[in-house]
Amino acid sequence: MEQFTSNQAAAWIWYPGDFEIRLHEKVSVKRRARGVMYPVFWRLDRHYSNVSFRYTYDLPQEEQIRIMAEGAFSLFLDGRENYRSNTPVVTLPAGRHQITVCVFSDVEAPALRIEGAHVRTGPDWEVSSYQNDWLPAGSWTFDSPENRPSQFRLAVTPQEPVSIEQRDGFPLLDFGRETFGYLRFHNLAGSGSVRIYYGESLMEALSPDGCYSLDEFTVHEAEVRAEDGIYTLDDAKAFRYVWIQTDPGVRWSHVSMLYEYVPLDYRGAFECSDSKLNEIYGRGMYTLQLNTREFFLDGIKRDFWVWSGDAYQAFLMNYYSFFDLDVTRRTLIALRGKDPLTKHINTILDYSPYWFISLYDYYLYTGDAGFIRQYYDRAVSLMEFCLKQRDEEGFLIGLPGDWVFVDWADFATTGALSTIQILLARALEAMSIFAGLAEDPAASDSYRKLAEELKARTMQLFWDEEKGGLLHHRVDGVTQPELTKHASMFAMTYGYLTPEQRERVIQSVLLNPEVPQIRTPYMRFHEMAVLCEGGLHDQVRQQILSYWGGMIALGATTFWEEYNPALADDAHYSMYGMPFGKSLCHAWGAGPVYLMGKYFLGVTPASPGYETYRIEPNLGGLEHMKGTVPTGKGQINVEADLSIIRVESTSGSGVLAFASSEQPACNYGTVRPLGGDRYEVTIEAGKSYSITYTAVI
Amino acid sequence: MEQFTSNQAAAWIWYPGDFEIRLHEKVSVKRRARGVMYPVFWRLDRHYSNVSFRYTYDLPQEEQIRIMAEGAFSLFLDGRENYRSNTPVVTLPAGRHQITVCVFSDVEAPALRIEGAHVRTGPDWEVSSYQNDWLPAGSWTFDSPENRPSQFRLAVTPQEPVSIEQRDGFPLLDFGRETFGYLRFHNLAGSGSVRIYYGESLMEALSPDGCYSLDEFTVHEAEVRAEDGIYTLDDAKAFRYVWIQTDPGVRWSHVSMLYEYVPLDYRGAFECSDSKLNEIYGRGMYTLQLNTREFFLDGIKRDFWVWSGDAYQAFLMNYYSFFDLDVTRRTLIALRGKDPLTKHINTILDYSPYWFISLYDYYLYTGDAGFIRQYYDRAVSLMEFCLKQRDEEGFLIGLPGDWVFVDWADFATTGALSTIQILLARALEAMSIFAGLAEDPAASDSYRKLAEELKARTMQLFWDEEKGGLLHHRVDGVTQPELTKHASMFAMTYGYLTPEQRERVIQSVLLNPEVPQIRTPYMRFHEMAVLCEGGLHDQVRQQILSYWGGMIALGATTFWEEYNPALADDAHYSMYGMPFGKSLCHAWGAGPVYLMGKYFLGVTPASPGYETYRIEPNLGGLEHMKGTVPTGKGQINVEADLSIIRVESTSGSGVLAFASSEQPACNYGTVRPLGGDRYEVTIEAGKSYSITYTAVI
Repeated sequence: MEQFTSNQAAAWIWYPGDFEIRLHEKVSVKRRARGVMYPVFWRLDRHYSNVSFRYTYDLPQEEQIRIMAEGAFSLFLDGRENYRSNTPVVTLPAGRHQITVCVFSDVEAPALRIEGAHVRTGPDWEVSSYQNDWLPAGSWTFDSPENRPSQFRLAVTPQEPVSIEQRDGFPLLDFGRETFGYLRFHNLAGSGSVRIYYGESLMEALSPDGCYSLDEFTVHEAEVRAEDGIYTLDDAKAFRYVWIQTDPGVRWSHVSMLYEYVPLDYRGAFECSDSKLNEIYGRGMYTLQLNTREFFLDGIKRDFWVWSGDAYQAFLMNYYSFFDLDVTRRTLIALRGKDPLTKHINTILDYSPYWFISLYDYYLYTGDAGFIRQYYDRAVSLMEFCLKQRDEEGFLIGLPGDWVFVDWADFATTGALSTIQILLARALEAMSIFAGLAEDPAASDSYRKLAEELKARTMQLFWDEEKGGLLHHRVDGVTQPELTKHASMFAMTYGYLTPEQRERVIQSVLLNPEVPQIRTPYMRFHEMAVLCEGGLHDQVRQQILSYWGGMIALGATTFWEEYNPALADDAHYSMYGMPFGKSLCHAWGAGPVYLMGKYFLGVTPASPGYETYRIEPNLGGLEHMKGTVPTGKGQINVEADLSIIRVESTSGSGVLAFASSEQPACNYGTVRPLGGDRYEVTIEAGKSYSITYTAVI
Repeated sequence: MEQFTSNQAAAWIWYPGDFEIRLHEKVSVKRRARGVMYPVFWRLDRHYSNVSFRYTYDLPQEEQIRIMAEGAFSLFLDGRENYRSNTPVVTLPAGRHQITVCVFSDVEAPALRIEGAHVRTGPDWEVSSYQNDWLPAGSWTFDSPENRPSQFRLAVTPQEPVSIEQRDGFPLLDFGRETFGYLRFHNLAGSGSVRIYYGESLMEALSPDGCYSLDEFTVHEAEVRAEDGIYTLDDAKAFRYVWIQTDPGVRWSHVSMLYEYVPLDYRGAFECSDSKLNEIYGRGMYTLQLNTREFFLDGIKRDFWVWSGDAYQAFLMNYYSFFDLDVTRRTLIALRGKDPLTKHINTILDYSPYWFISLYDYYLYTGDAGFIRQYYDRAVSLMEFCLKQRDEEGFLIGLPGDWVFVDWADFATTGALSTIQILLARALEAMSIFAGLAEDPAASDSYRKLAEELKARTMQLFWDEEKGGLLHHRVDGVTQPELTKHASMFAMTYGYLTPEQRERVIQSVLLNPEVPQIRTPYMRFHEMAVLCEGGLHDQVRQQILSYWGGMIALGATTFWEEYNPALADDAHYSMYGMPFGKSLCHAWGAGPVYLMGKYFLGVTPASPGYETYRIEPNLGGLEHMKGTVPTGKGQINVEADLSIIRVESTSGSGVLAFASSEQPACNYGTVRPLGGDRYEVTIEAGKSYSITYTAVI
């Protein structure tokens, strides 16, 4: 996305998306189940091995260029295909000429770097996979001969255990909190084998037969591979504890680890009068950071995979925390993959619509229309694939072999699910916007109409006026009586309900104890959000304290894949039929990061890229809160207690909206009464607003 | 295709087609233009890196198996995905269980070999790329731990130059005829560089600035890489001559080469009373052999690529010579590649229909319905792609970016070309047969109807009753007056003409000097065939002697990509704007191999796999001929002079058809008169038939 000037550094370039798709291929097979590879169970897409780059230059005088490629290359000028060169230095003739460089690489994605005084590779070059597809080349931060796309690795830094104790005669190391990386042995000596049992929990590390992650090696192997006396293990692991068993006589001076991570700015912040909530927020940030890697992963112990439904939430959390767009773009590209589409993303029906919605959110939070345009064709073909799988009523349904997920819950997944239709409608609205950005108004209209028709048909056939919500599913043309929260929640979030319907949903569905409760942090993310949409911040705060606080009370340093408060203390770790199958550092557990930023500090973009925005702080029962929301180029600071709201923004223009039981006052601009106890103030960049008000409790 | 018994050797297995597709990826970038890579200019498809194999066994007692994979593997039983093993030896429990083995390999195609007393990998295992596609696994002759698919290499054997002379003080080696392989230097010494100029012709080798293939290395590089004093160059080349220039003081004891080839049985044979024709046949066989490699290539110097239109002819020649089905299947699989289809095969409109016709020929000559069924889905999707590209009249047309080729000739390629429609009709007929084999009668009917409609519409809109042939093309709904031979030729070969139309085509198109003459051996292949279909063997024999004999007169040891008898002796070698751009060993130059077997010996299958066949010998002006046509499992021998026909067949049952001006007699069975001077005899396997007759001259 970076724009280069004429003095641009010579960048490594590639077929757009292929760096990301190749990286995803590598990451998708890193998962180890008790030391054994557990690859993803969907088709892994691959980079094009055979591509061609081109560029037309116009030089007043000849110029020497230096050519480097990842792969084999051949260069020719002006279409003279039979007269090729593969020397690393070429003198380009003066005048206007077209350079073509073919690059082949069957291992890493073919990449090219050319450096001359004026002619330099960058995104103004085009690339083709020989399918009539000359596209702007992909590039990123790789801009030196050594800094090559294939060599991309996350950052590492040493970490030390905070305590070591002996258990059954073997050392148990505690790194203090969940972490991720490579264990290192310093000055290993003796002979025999070393067996390492990793645990996200203490109990897991102490269960050699049950722990999910383990390693084994001999001292001899380690000695051969050690550098400067340090043997660093090959595979990174997720853990807090390690228990190291050895044959007699094996010894070392020291065990440490290399923490592997994406360097992230903690741009979002939240601090309030409730220290428990602050702790939850902090551990949420850390949970999200650990899962923010080559891509947004679901969990770092297991699955270590990239899932669209999980990423949808991680993207949203990221906009309120790190605002890291590199990981976001990589994840969106990797999830979409390549054609032909024969199954939904991650094999899950609902995970295709989530991709469009995530892409729309990317546009809304960043305003990056260039990225949308670059991948518009891939969005079009994914939507074509989805639209083909509608039933005779026009509802998107699961076909044989599809996984209709929605949530880990005991409900039917046959026929047409209302939740799926709401997601598809939102995806169609997103496509309408993308088509507009791609300057295809006819397609934009067509997607908009499809969205409207689908919304209308869904409301008509699933809305139950008596029950006050959307019924769960429809089989053979008959809507079934089952009521779940999911569809009504999404419909409310996406603004598909009338004010009356919203009120009915809140009272009759969300707050109705007879409707099946949501138990996964995955879907509770959406539930908490929609409760906030309904103004129930106080209740959300209490639920966060109870649910996320409950995990902390059990010793969680990061948040879990699933949490059932009703379980006994030692029964929390099993899942998927494995005693320690549950992931204790799962991205979707970090929901409070998003909820605090979006619904308590109350900051949302009102137009793409935060050109305009809305700030609607809600203390939700807190006495005081203070925080920051990143907005791309800048940030918005919000501070509130029961009598003062302070707001500062570095760019764009916004509206601060709030309720006050007395007439408020502001140091800048005008306070506009909206009727009742509602007021708003226009916020301009660079000014510190201070509003005196009286909170409505 | 091999069937395994319960005592089958443990075979390496893979996702069907992926061995071939990976091999094609490697071969497609071997071409070197003056030492520089010149990759294919179409999308190169790739193997799936992430696949899963499965097999259900039932064992009376437990059994130890040994597991090997190309790539990383993990094995589990009975769907217990969380309990995986990657140890090379596993003990399988007794009873009925399902083994699943995931294999990932991003370099070579993932492959698996399991060997136990009873449980062994073979084509009865299934494999999936995680797209709901459990298919019978691919396998071939790789059945030992060392003999792995990724290690597949053609055979090599040493060859020596037949003469060495000095030119300008540097040695010029002549290997006696066109060959292909790796030059070797024995006991190289001194220092400095060695520059090698290869020539298919003497003139090319003596043109350092113009030759297509060259090598350069230093003595030092060679010494580092030599084994037992022999330095073998990395890249194989096509050549007859090499001219070796060196820096002063560089010396060696000896230069030889390693000839690289597919070991082929010369199962077809032809010998006749005309020694020139025998020479043409022999050089045709050798031309074909050199191009019969990992795949059927177009030419071994250039392009070294796999082209569907070229392969269509090589396939047919192969059925009358080597009957090598491995190369045939590899080529069919590689050409089809993978989805999504965004361009025609090789980017050429006509090359998609040729693929279906080639696949039909494969079925006709071999009867291998299993292969058709295995790749039926890929045929269906290629046909879907083709059918989408029809105009409003239902004619297949070139879209923007398509290469509409038909032939190297000066004719229009706009609008709908009649040749393309004839090829598509034949392709649809083939699809109808394939659908029948795949037990989809509805699809079979549908393809047949599409073929009939297209044939009828083509005859209606392109047939010119006055000119007696199919006009060339139709633009904006108007058939243009241009007449070319191509469409009429194919229509005649495929049996789309009435007897009256055939006669008109022969007289008014084929034998009409005012219709533009065909100049490429590529299309002359089809022209010669159709002249034989018209009974003009004598004329074909004379044309072969003149055209192919003309190349021999110019020193050809193999046949060329193009030959224009009108050119001066030294003007034959240039093509594509390069002084030695022309390929002097081009598969399509080997047409006489096919013509002699099919139309002179006259052997054709009448039903798939030669279960029944027809023998219609035609001396075409020769006094005597004798030859063999392979029929898969067996062969058919035919010998004829003007008074005796001798026929022997090892399998199947056939009909010998011939003309005789006197009543013929036969040593076995009955001679059935068909009216006029036509007779036939039923041929049973294992008997030597001798027919006394009087040839009609």
